[in-house]
Amino acid sequence: MNKSKEKVNAAIVIIGNEILSGRTQDVNVVAISTWLNELGVKLEEVRVIPDLEISIIKTVNELKKNFNYIFTTGGIGPTHDDITAKSIAKAFKMPYGYHKKAYAILEKYYGKDKFNIGRKKMAMMPTKASLILNPSSGAPGFIVDNVFCLPGVPSILKSMLGGLKNKIKGGKKILSQTISVNTVESEISKSLANIQNTFTKVDIGSYPFFRLGKIGVSIVMRSPDKKKIDECYKEIVSFLKKRKINIIERK
Amino acid sequence: MNKSKEKVNAAIVIIGNEILSGRTQDVNVVAISTWLNELGVKLEEVRVIPDLEISIIKTVNELKKNFNYIFTTGGIGPTHDDITAKSIAKAFKMPYGYHKKAYAILEKYYGKDKFNIGRKKMAMMPTKASLILNPSSGAPGFIVDNVFCLPGVPSILKSMLGGLKNKIKGGKKILSQTISVNTVESEISKSLANIQNTFTKVDIGSYPFFRLGKIGVSIVMRSPDKKKIDECYKEIVSFLKKRKINIIERK
Repeated sequence: MNKSKEKVNAAIVIIGNEILSGRTQDVNVVAISTWLNELGVKLEEVRVIPDLEISIIKTVNELKKNFNYIFTTGGIGPTHDDITAKSIAKAFKMPYGYHKKAYAILEKYYGKDKFNIGRKKMAMMPTKASLILNPSSGAPGFIVDNVFCLPGVPSILKSMLGGLKNKIKGGKKILSQTISVNTVESEISKSLANIQNTFTKVDIGSYPFFRLGKIGVSIVMRSPDKKKIDECYKEIVSFLKKRKINIIERK
Repeated sequence: MNKSKEKVNAAIVIIGNEILSGRTQDVNVVAISTWLNELGVKLEEVRVIPDLEISIIKTVNELKKNFNYIFTTGGIGPTHDDITAKSIAKAFKMPYGYHKKAYAILEKYYGKDKFNIGRKKMAMMPTKASLILNPSSGAPGFIVDNVFCLPGVPSILKSMLGGLKNKIKGGKKILSQTISVNTVESEISKSLANIQNTFTKVDIGSYPFFRLGKIGVSIVMRSPDKKKIDECYKEIVSFLKKRKINIIERK
């Protein structure tokens, strides 16, 4: 088996009091996860933690051993509550200070006159980190080992993901198929459980929804194996037909 | 100091492959966190984990020791991928089976004829759990020790929070004040850091935003101590005035 086809997984660490306080709705998990699916990397855990050095160090040190890739979001801006870069340096016991290349990029971006102390702070990070270029607002993210540090602002984060593709060695792409039906979960739970027992290589999820005043269920199949998904899909469609359950949508 | 005024904290465990895969945008963190703020409970960690028994048991056992309250969301429905109740029973080494009161509620809700095997599954949980009543769709959540198990569907979850107030012993309510200004973070970072150093009992956060094509920063102060927030607020307004930085909004 080709090594690149083995399972590759990831975790996200969202660093942000504003997410925990309920002030800000996170949208970065969906953005990163959708992007990782395309690369064949399975997101397997997310943690949201406060802007506290001890929390960042503990969480990153624990997760970086257990997952192929870790993505942190938030805390790399110019203010006092932006402590991700310093905390990551401490987690890796690496020197923290001005990163030469980041300093040069930011000085050029702002111009010497406007390169004030707040902006200079954004060049402070583990001095030996690799940079993640930022096409939308200058300040780069950085990579240490398998930990990728990204900003919290969703539009900036998204603009930086594109340039990262070559730094991620994904596995087989995770494929998905969805069948939405006009019924309630309890009507299909037994049959779905039987099908799941037969197709152990496909994750079958069942998600109730309310749409335009009508209730329904989305049955989602996920697997890196297209053949298995196709077989599983046929089996589900066949049981729905037999039970005369109306299929609203397939995608 | 009154014991009820001490710091009370909480963690959320989101159990759901659909959140990790990026298929579904979580909105329950904001709902629970906003509700907890009112009760004087500070949300200090969130974990999103897969629908896997071993992950649920490990995560809940770790967090229930470190936080006053744990809220789980998801995985208490009628299908094969709903394994929260069984996993929580295992985490607490409690018997798992039909919960008499939950069974009676569900039988009444659906009627004897329509109380099929899928619906009966929703009465299976740690048999000695306390119930969380569900005013919108019948199936109750449950409480074991400091772990509160809620459904994943946001509208149902929200309808169940109201009835939980008396089961939570909160601390002092966490207050917040926001000042939004017409500048960039790097222009105020040094002054804000100084103010944060003076007001150690107030969490000062700084969040850049883009609104109607204009950039700005929201400065958020959070503390259970109203007097300290008021003092901190005055200090920030005074430095903004001195620096002629335009305040867009206060709330």
